[in-house]
Amino acid sequence: MINDVLLTPLDIIETLGGNIMHAMKEIDAGFYGFGEAYFSEVNFNSIKAWKRHKEMTLNLVVPVGKIKFVLFDNREGSNNQFQEITISRDNYCRLTVPPMVWVGFKGLSKNGSLLLNIANIGHDPLEVDKKNIKEIEFNWNS
Amino acid sequence: MINDVLLTPLDIIETLGGNIMHAMKEIDAGFYGFGEAYFSEVNFNSIKAWKRHKEMTLNLVVPVGKIKFVLFDNREGSNNQFQEITISRDNYCRLTVPPMVWVGFKGLSKNGSLLLNIANIGHDPLEVDKKNIKEIEFNWNS
Repeated sequence: MINDVLLTPLDIIETLGGNIMHAMKEIDAGFYGFGEAYFSEVNFNSIKAWKRHKEMTLNLVVPVGKIKFVLFDNREGSNNQFQEITISRDNYCRLTVPPMVWVGFKGLSKNGSLLLNIANIGHDPLEVDKKNIKEIEFNWNS
Repeated sequence: MINDVLLTPLDIIETLGGNIMHAMKEIDAGFYGFGEAYFSEVNFNSIKAWKRHKEMTLNLVVPVGKIKFVLFDNREGSNNQFQEITISRDNYCRLTVPPMVWVGFKGLSKNGSLLLNIANIGHDPLEVDKKNIKEIEFNWNS
C-alpha cells in the first residue's frame, strides 16, 4: 500500500426492507474531521483523472456499482508508486486517500456507479491540482 | 412544517462522466457535528417505521430512487402533527429531522432506493425509541 492510504472493510447489516451499509464513524481510522460529504456518479467506462488535493483527505465509499481507483504517489521520498483498488458492494470497503496523492477512477458497472466522499474540508478549487489523463501514464484498459 | 424540520434543496452539478451531487457541508443549516454516516437501502414498497431518536439529528439525502418520509411530532406543546415529504433525485433535497420527532419511511422506487444519513452522533441503541408500525396510525397507501 502507498503510505497513509487505508482500505477499511465496512459492515453491511441485513435488515428487513433493505440493508444498512456503514460508511464512516468519527472514531474510525482515517477520520480527520468533517468538512463536506458529496456524491459523484460514475458512468460505465468513464474515467475521471487526475486530481490531487493539497489539504483534503478523501474517504471514499461505493454503495452502488463498482469503481476502480488508481492512486499515484510522487511525493518526495516516495517511489512513484501506483496502486489500483477496486471497490464495490461485493468488496465493501472505505478507501482513505491522504493529501498530495494523485487519484483517478473509472466506472466499471454498466448501470452506473455511485461514490460518496466524506472529506475533512469543504470543496475549495484552490487546494486541488489537476492533470490531464495523459499527463500521468497509466493503462486504464488493463 | 414541523418545528425544527428543515428541507434544504441541494445542487446537482452536471459533470462529464457523471454528475456531482451535494449532500452536506459543515457550514450548512442542520449540521450539528459529525458522529456517523451510513446508508439505508429501501426496497420497493417496504416501510421502515417508527423510530424516534432522543439525541440524534438526522440529515437525510436520497441519491438513488424515491422515498416517502412521514414525520410525527408529539413533543410537548406540539399539535400531534404529521408531515409527509417525498425526496428523490428529481426533488433533490436534504431532510433534517430534529431529535424527539417520530420518523418512518417507504421506498417508492421499483429498482430500490438509497438513503444516506449524516448524523451528529454515532449509532447508540440506547437513544432510540421504537414503535411498531401500527402503534402510530397512518395511511401508508395514500
